[in-house]
Order: sequence, then structure tokens, then C-alpha cells
Amino acid sequence: MRNLNQDTITQAVIARFSNTPDARLKEIMTSLVQHLHDFAREVKLTETEWATGIDFLTRVGHITNEKRQEFILLSDTLGLSTLTIAMNNDKPPGCTEATVFGPFHLDNAPQYALGEDIANGAKGAPCLVRGRVTGPGGEGIANATMEVWQSDDEGLYDVQHPGLDRAQNRGVLHTDSQGHFHFRSTLAVAYPIPHDGPVGQMLAATQNHPWRPAHLHFRIQAEGYETLTTHVFRDDDRYLDSDVVFGVRQSLLAKWAKQSDGSYLLEYTFVLNPENGRL
Amino acid sequence: MRNLNQDTITQAVIARFSNTPDARLKEIMTSLVQHLHDFAREVKLTETEWATGIDFLTRVGHITNEKRQEFILLSDTLGLSTLTIAMNNDKPPGCTEATVFGPFHLDNAPQYALGEDIANGAKGAPCLVRGRVTGPGGEGIANATMEVWQSDDEGLYDVQHPGLDRAQNRGVLHTDSQGHFHFRSTLAVAYPIPHDGPVGQMLAATQNHPWRPAHLHFRIQAEGYETLTTHVFRDDDRYLDSDVVFGVRQSLLAKWAKQSDGSYLLEYTFVLNPENGRL
Repeated sequence: MRNLNQDTITQAVIARFSNTPDARLKEIMTSLVQHLHDFAREVKLTETEWATGIDFLTRVGHITNEKRQEFILLSDTLGLSTLTIAMNNDKPPGCTEATVFGPFHLDNAPQYALGEDIANGAKGAPCLVRGRVTGPGGEGIANATMEVWQSDDEGLYDVQHPGLDRAQNRGVLHTDSQGHFHFRSTLAVAYPIPHDGPVGQMLAATQNHPWRPAHLHFRIQAEGYETLTTHVFRDDDRYLDSDVVFGVRQSLLAKWAKQSDGSYLLEYTFVLNPENGRL
Repeated sequence: MRNLNQDTITQAVIARFSNTPDARLKEIMTSLVQHLHDFAREVKLTETEWATGIDFLTRVGHITNEKRQEFILLSDTLGLSTLTIAMNNDKPPGCTEATVFGPFHLDNAPQYALGEDIANGAKGAPCLVRGRVTGPGGEGIANATMEVWQSDDEGLYDVQHPGLDRAQNRGVLHTDSQGHFHFRSTLAVAYPIPHDGPVGQMLAATQNHPWRPAHLHFRIQAEGYETLTTHVFRDDDRYLDSDVVFGVRQSLLAKWAKQSDGSYLLEYTFVLNPENGRL
């Protein structure tokens, strides 16, 4: 295996991975090498461009920490996240659609009882969120675990506020015996993804804005059902057709209805797909 | 641009990059998105595998610092580096071939006069390296800048020794008026690339060893000639046919000749390609 050239290198690398014990890993490595090399050959990547790519990925890695995940932002803005979600979430009609996970989820968010205010001091117009988690036949799902997270009225998640030492607009709740839930939060607003790092530079260089339409994140888990990771989007947002992470689905739009006292009300029903019910 | 699915997402992302002012960047982004998505579709990447990939890249980024470049190791071990070198270094017959840059080059290495010992305390059998830098017609190239770097007899570069505060086996020299050079160093030995990080885990999971055949790195720059980044390899090394980074070229093999006093002698002539002389 000497004197490899641009035509022979790809099969040589694939051959190296041919003894991989895990058949799935072997399949992934083989396809990855083929497509990575095909890309480099197609554009005839120069050495300077290669070095720029190494530097870009290094900066993506270095800006990533426990509160900021720039690789997820990169995957989101290249459409890889939406592609992966789409391939793995075919559901029967009537089930709530999934969308991207995003970079701002945290494990171990605080637990709340139904009716409590997850804002925990976050700024924004008060909002009541209520609804139900059901199966496809409308049956309520009791004790479903619902993780919720959203930005404040500045468009920032708690983890984006330097020095903030507590969770805001983030919590874990459980549905009642009939599958109902309700909690208090703040009005969701449109916001730009963090664009002071390498992904922001990529967006600027390609003349793309960094905005996401206003939304509220949910991850809902219940025994016997597929986990649902999704958002609900505000139906009147200006960025619905240009979401920087390609996440909008028409079925996930809902109205944040302004109430006479100036607060808002969002109502939404989530329909989970039974396990083994995947199309 | 709503309700994107696995068939429509790719064109939607490519359309996002269609207003990129820099034509080359647009070409690269378009091809990158197409091949990245083709890969994910071909293997039908799962959400768990996607998360594993995000975590892998994050760890590659976090172990990378000013002394360790894990993204270059990743590029090297996936054959991308050799592919890039091969595409950009077609040279006329007789010119010295290029090979991978590797992760251990440092800018601002110490300057040495001809004949000095670049080992600077590095352990290993003494070695005299001498030769010439010429053009294709054999004409000596005066005052060529020659950067040299190599491991010690433990297979470690200076930057891999924690706490070492000076350069060892690393330096910058200049050829004399006839293109000749000579310096002292230590015997090159085979070594494993750093394999205590994510790239090492990839190699282990795919049952590949992490070894490189013994070699000495050169980067040679001279006015009017293309810069040459290459190695000279020991011609008796056991890893010549299984170099973990796919870098071996038969024309770059040379003998480290053992002398009667136990030291070694390496002689090599580098032939640079005139600028605008590329095939």
C-alpha cells in the first residue's frame, strides 16, 4: 500500500476498514470514506482549502462547551439534522411530527408540578401552555414525561446568559391521569442562533440570516410509545419560511392567543406513536 | 420552505447557499451538502448514530490544542490528507514527491546553521543528514529554507513531552550557495500516532494499528519553486506497507546507513519543481 494516488486512495482506505468487527460501523466508515473522498475529488480541494477546513472544525470544537454545542449548530445549518430526523420519524398520519433537537437541551432540568411557572424569573410576557398527550386513538397518556425548553423575550436560553446560575424557561413535567398538562412560561419569540462563532461566519459568508421562528421545544417520553422530540411554532412568525435550521413543519404551527390581561395562551395536543407502530 | 423530507432537504439547503458571493465557496458548500446528505441517506443514519458523531467530533475538538491536532490525525487516518496532497502535487518526473504534512509541524522552530545538531538534547542514536536541494536539471538551489522535524527514539515529538520547554529534533536551516545542506539529528524510528484520543478509538474499533514507518519531515521553500512538503522514510521499516496515514511513496525511501562508530548517515537529494512547472 504505497504510492497511493487520487484514484487508488479511496479503495485503500476502505480496505483498511474491512476488518471492522461491528458490521454497522464498517458500513458507516465505508460510506463515509467514499463520500468524503468523492467530495474532495469533485471540488478538487486545494491544500489551502484543506487547511481552512481543519481550522474551521478546530474552531467549532473549541467554542463548544457544556453550554454551547457548535457541532449541532453546524449539523442543523447544513440540513443534516433535519435529514436525520426525517429519515427516522416516519409516523402514521395523525401522529405529531418530529423536528430538530437543537443545541440547547440540558439533561437534569428542574422538575415542576403541573401548573407551576417554569420561567423561574425569565423575562417575557406571561404565557399559559396547556394541552394533552394522547395516543393515535385519542386516549390520554398518563404520567408522560415532558421536557420543555425555550428562550426568553431577548431570544436567549438560560445557558446563554453568562453567570446565570439557575434554569429558566426549562423544566420537566408529567401529564396527569388523563394525559393533560399545563404550565406557565413566557411568550416564545424569534431569535438568531448563536452567530458569533464559526457557524455564524459560515452563514455570513453565504449571505444567510441566523434567525429561527419563535418556538417552544418539547421532548415527550412515555412507556409503550416512541419518544417525540419536537417544537411548536408560532403561526404568525416572519421566519417560518426561512428557518435557519430547516425545522418548520406546517402541522407544528399554533396560535399563541393574546388574552385580555396581556398574557398569552397556547393550546396543543401531542399525539405519540406507539412503539412498533412505525410505518 | 416547510415540511422538508429526506428527498427535498438537500436541494433546499443547496438553494440556501445559492447567493454565496464567493463562487468557489458556493461550489464547495454545494458539493459538501450533496455528499454529506448522500452519505447520511446511504447508511440511513439513525438519531443515535448522529449523536455519536456529534460527540466524536466534539471530543476531537476538545483534545486539539496548540500542541496536538486531532482533526489532522482524523483527516490523515481517513485518507483525506493523502488524497488532497495527491490532487495538488502532480509534478514532472524526477521531482521529489510530496506526502502528508502531519499534525506535528510548528511555526517558528529554532534556526540552525549548517552542521549544527537539531536534536538539542533529544534521545536517540546520533545521525548525520546531508544532501542537496536542486532544480530538475540538477542545478543547486542556494539559500532554500528547510524546515525539519522528527520524533526522538521513543517515537515522540518534542511537543508530546509534557513540560519540555524547548524544541528538540526540530529546526530551520538554509542551503549553502550550491544547494548543499547538512545537520545532525537522531535516528528516525517508527512510532504510533497519538492514539489515546478519539482517533485512537476509531483505529481500535476498526482493528487498525496506529503505527507510522520511521521518517523525517521536511518542508522546503525556495524562491521560484513550489514549496515541497514531504518525508524521507527508512527503507527497512516494517510499517512501510501499512502506514496508518497512507503516506508512503517508494521514491521517498532511503537508507539510514550505520557507521562504524554506531552513528547513522542519511543522504538525500530533493528536487524542487519550478513554479508554473506543474504538469
